[in-house]
Amino acid sequence: MNSMLTRMGGFGSPEDASINSITLFVVLLLSCVVIGHLLEKSRWMTESVIALLIGLLTGTIILLTTGWKSSHILVFDEELFFIYLLPPIIFNAGFQVKKKQFFKNFMAIVLYGVVGSMISFAIISLGSIQLFKGLDIGVLDLGDYFAGICFFFPFGSNIFTQKLIDCEVLNQEETPLLYSLVFGEGVVNDATSVVLFNAIQKFDLSHITSANILQFVGNFFYLFLTSTLLGVAVGLFSAYIIKKLCFARHSTDREVALMFLMAYLSYMLAELLDLSGILTVFFCGIAMSHYTWHNVSGSSKVTSRHAFAAFSFVSEIFIFLYVGMDALDMEKWKFASKSPWTLVASSGLLLCLVLLGRAAFVFPLSSLANLFRKSNNDKITFKQQVVIWWAGLMRGAVSVALAYNKFTRSGHTQLQGNAIMITSTIIVVLLTNVVGGLLTKPLIRLLLNPHKHSGISVDSDLSPSKRLTLPLLSNEHESESNVDIGNPLDSNRTVHHYWRIFDDSIMRPVFGGRGFAPVAPDSERDVILR
Amino acid sequence: MNSMLTRMGGFGSPEDASINSITLFVVLLLSCVVIGHLLEKSRWMTESVIALLIGLLTGTIILLTTGWKSSHILVFDEELFFIYLLPPIIFNAGFQVKKKQFFKNFMAIVLYGVVGSMISFAIISLGSIQLFKGLDIGVLDLGDYFAGICFFFPFGSNIFTQKLIDCEVLNQEETPLLYSLVFGEGVVNDATSVVLFNAIQKFDLSHITSANILQFVGNFFYLFLTSTLLGVAVGLFSAYIIKKLCFARHSTDREVALMFLMAYLSYMLAELLDLSGILTVFFCGIAMSHYTWHNVSGSSKVTSRHAFAAFSFVSEIFIFLYVGMDALDMEKWKFASKSPWTLVASSGLLLCLVLLGRAAFVFPLSSLANLFRKSNNDKITFKQQVVIWWAGLMRGAVSVALAYNKFTRSGHTQLQGNAIMITSTIIVVLLTNVVGGLLTKPLIRLLLNPHKHSGISVDSDLSPSKRLTLPLLSNEHESESNVDIGNPLDSNRTVHHYWRIFDDSIMRPVFGGRGFAPVAPDSERDVILR
Repeated sequence: MNSMLTRMGGFGSPEDASINSITLFVVLLLSCVVIGHLLEKSRWMTESVIALLIGLLTGTIILLTTGWKSSHILVFDEELFFIYLLPPIIFNAGFQVKKKQFFKNFMAIVLYGVVGSMISFAIISLGSIQLFKGLDIGVLDLGDYFAGICFFFPFGSNIFTQKLIDCEVLNQEETPLLYSLVFGEGVVNDATSVVLFNAIQKFDLSHITSANILQFVGNFFYLFLTSTLLGVAVGLFSAYIIKKLCFARHSTDREVALMFLMAYLSYMLAELLDLSGILTVFFCGIAMSHYTWHNVSGSSKVTSRHAFAAFSFVSEIFIFLYVGMDALDMEKWKFASKSPWTLVASSGLLLCLVLLGRAAFVFPLSSLANLFRKSNNDKITFKQQVVIWWAGLMRGAVSVALAYNKFTRSGHTQLQGNAIMITSTIIVVLLTNVVGGLLTKPLIRLLLNPHKHSGISVDSDLSPSKRLTLPLLSNEHESESNVDIGNPLDSNRTVHHYWRIFDDSIMRPVFGGRGFAPVAPDSERDVILR
Repeated sequence: MNSMLTRMGGFGSPEDASINSITLFVVLLLSCVVIGHLLEKSRWMTESVIALLIGLLTGTIILLTTGWKSSHILVFDEELFFIYLLPPIIFNAGFQVKKKQFFKNFMAIVLYGVVGSMISFAIISLGSIQLFKGLDIGVLDLGDYFAGICFFFPFGSNIFTQKLIDCEVLNQEETPLLYSLVFGEGVVNDATSVVLFNAIQKFDLSHITSANILQFVGNFFYLFLTSTLLGVAVGLFSAYIIKKLCFARHSTDREVALMFLMAYLSYMLAELLDLSGILTVFFCGIAMSHYTWHNVSGSSKVTSRHAFAAFSFVSEIFIFLYVGMDALDMEKWKFASKSPWTLVASSGLLLCLVLLGRAAFVFPLSSLANLFRKSNNDKITFKQQVVIWWAGLMRGAVSVALAYNKFTRSGHTQLQGNAIMITSTIIVVLLTNVVGGLLTKPLIRLLLNPHKHSGISVDSDLSPSKRLTLPLLSNEHESESNVDIGNPLDSNRTVHHYWRIFDDSIMRPVFGGRGFAPVAPDSERDVILR
């Protein structure tokens, strides 16, 4: 940047430093991608663990070269995270999700996401207040403290499931039930945490009245509905524009740019209106993959599918790399190191509370969900429940970033109580991600044994990218015909049935979609020619 | 953003303002894309003109609603521009360029870019110093002034050629000679302007010695060679990695992420080493499209081609939108409006000097280039020279941003001389882009009459995106066989001949490329399946 910027009028060291750190980050991202590829066959490593370890290693090197002063080269910037890194991750999640499985398990997902989060929140926050009182580590601001607890919500979905897809252990094809449960839980949970946080800031916790609770429930449903509707509306608008303008016959670049800008617009509009941007952009992704994606040309289909996925992939690695690097920052450890045993005790207690909090809602709620499932095949088995419990432990990119942002605000590390809280959080994050990440693959293999039905070994040879494209470009997979498995009296079946009729008769003729695209359905040649 | 950021710890108005402005910008970008599509058939409008006009309109509305205080909502940020917006534009230019034509006309391009820029610089700067002295508009800092003049260098290439490709007037298929000349001139010119600027800052202009000039020439060649080599080296490295690791069999997302990160790395490394980032990332794009692109899977090919193009497309619209919006900023006009006639006079003089400066090198250098071209078909005709002269007038996204950055640095608008300079620049930018942009399409149609050989009308029906993909996915177009048109004694022919032998025997076996990819050449099916 020197030549560029000096040419423009001479810049000092801050800009040079930012070029240095960006270059270093790009090199580290590249090494994560390459090492992640080399270790893809490994039974233990996932890309997030690699990124964390590389971050830790780099942090150590920086620490040694700067004389134990600083281990991170970029200051955490919530604008960078919430405006640039997060939206592509969540949009891509919605864009690639198996819609049918997601909506089939919608009630269970909401149950986990809403009720489960609240149970977990209550156990972790009340438990840790009692325990920390016993440890006597200084006064914590209660509001801040509760807000920080949001981190322990189970947003373990994105990077976790993505990586397990890569590992071909837990994927949408072989274990659709588990995938959609763990995955959907994380997305719905975001709306819950927005409402919880706002509620905690507004209401006096010592005076919990029934009116307060009613208002809280009302708030939640309002936020959930408006965020979802906004996302769907923007998605439908993009489908309508692309269908009406017949972009398909003119320019792939324009179509891809339009889809990208529309997705981004949905997120920004939601944040502007104080809604849950995560929920909005997720449902925008679902609407776009159901309607818009079918209206564009063949090469736009391939491009949007893979460009969004690649963008999300890089963003996730970036976050884990940052966390690994920042974990060694000295300032945080200075205060905590005065009382090492308190630190170990508090980390251990936090970890136990997190495990307990998850167990307290996964097992009861799964039993509850099973009551509504008639066929035995649909029921969530105990082994699957264990996987859901364990899988949610691994913090996703989003929850890690939330925790960091909350606990490392300037000045906070000066208080001993906060310092202990921050360092405990770092220890829990590293433990759940590195140890948990290393153990998850073997655990799932042990419990679910996906290779017992090795008759479909041909299918599991498909690479993840193949699996992404195949069902979407051929009409065989995920066929949305009216022939549905299951009991005709099943309520899910009926809802789905009426939705299909509504979709075919009203939605698709207006907004396009499979079979209603403005151009003839893409033949194989089209993908190449256009 | 409110919910997200307040949840994280309460933010004030600056972040809210940034969400407002980002949302507005996304909406404006979307309207540019849609309106650009609707007016695609028009003979007059190009996307850059539309973006400028929408920017002007929005600026007027903001001006009226804020009570004549401010017309722009984002402050110009050179980090945003040079780190995020510029690299994708230039990389995409290198990635999509017709390599054969570019290298065939390489000497003419360097002649325009280097010698032409210097002639133009000398005429404009010396001429305007004399003329401004006559107008008596206050003292301009000579160094700053010269640096600002860099704007008038002919970097008219990118958005100009891109839009003309869209309009199917000047494109790589029908007018390859003109395209590569106008286009290449802009890229080579960047290295010249870096060297010129550094030279002006270092040397005393009043003591020009032969040693100074020699050092200047040496500097230029050093910068040109090292920047090019760095770009090619990073491109080859990416090809080697992807070939060796056989990514193609595993993940499209990883391949696309790797290509994107590598391209970005080349730019950042160049800036870190004080080289010309534009030149480096351009040649990295060329190397990647020659080697790396052939080593990846079918869907990665489609995705990289279109994702990079879409990214570049959005960046360019963004810059023009900003310029249109910023042109109405009141502060700049406050000082200049005290002497309206001086403003008109100086704008007119600047415009004349720019026209003269371009004419002074395009026509003589074209004649010089023609001396080395043996066959009459290869010669640059007078009509083509007029198009080159006119086309370069339209400022590309890059030069517009350079000029803004230079002249709108804080405090500069306080001096009357600078205010006149800034407002004159804005007038020239708007005139050359809007008027020039409107007239270019008819001018080219009139002079070159591309439809006189309407036998190939089938070919011109291909949409731009088709044209991008077709030659790259089929082996017929741009066939890189050893059968070459032209005289066997032609020096270009010989150089190209030896390059082909070297490429086939050493480069491609090591780095992959057409016919040497690690996987079997992609059949049509592969694009869909992978």
